[in-house]
Amino acid sequence: MRPHKHPPASEFVLERVLYALSDTIRLGIVQHLARVDAAACGDLDGGRPKSTVSHHFKVLREAGLVWTENTGTTHMNRLRRADMDSRFPGLLAAILRQSGASDS
Amino acid sequence: MRPHKHPPASEFVLERVLYALSDTIRLGIVQHLARVDAAACGDLDGGRPKSTVSHHFKVLREAGLVWTENTGTTHMNRLRRADMDSRFPGLLAAILRQSGASDS
Repeated sequence: MRPHKHPPASEFVLERVLYALSDTIRLGIVQHLARVDAAACGDLDGGRPKSTVSHHFKVLREAGLVWTENTGTTHMNRLRRADMDSRFPGLLAAILRQSGASDS
Repeated sequence: MRPHKHPPASEFVLERVLYALSDTIRLGIVQHLARVDAAACGDLDGGRPKSTVSHHFKVLREAGLVWTENTGTTHMNRLRRADMDSRFPGLLAAILRQSGASDS
């Protein structure tokens, strides 16, 4: 399995982050990851088809929100909170604190 | 000219706001409106075709970010900052403060 690509924080783009979080499923994944240290894709897919979930994780990784590591046959995902905070201070917290947001 | 539709703050949807701001042109319009009381579409279009700009304003209105009033033949646009702050406290400020954002 090839390792996933993750942009460095210096290459995060605000519009891309906002786009990644503009989808209910992806926002739910990020909200879930904000509450745990790491989670396998299977814990985050909500029973959705693998191809759909793979696409959402790709969008989240490319925006810089999620770091995925392959450990054996499992993909473990972490929220890149420190990187996001260093590039866009206060942004992630402001989005995650909105109570109207849907949850995973 | 028919009046535009504007959702009440109670109907704002977080994902829709983030989507509206995930486009460089729309983000630039909102950043511009954050610095002025109101602006005509012509001040905000950056020389882009009217149909393109009309679409962007529609997305911004439907998300609740912009209020458009027809005054004669001119459309005057305002940022709905108070409504946005009441529904999603701190969100707009956190997005507008990111220095990496493109500007209009």
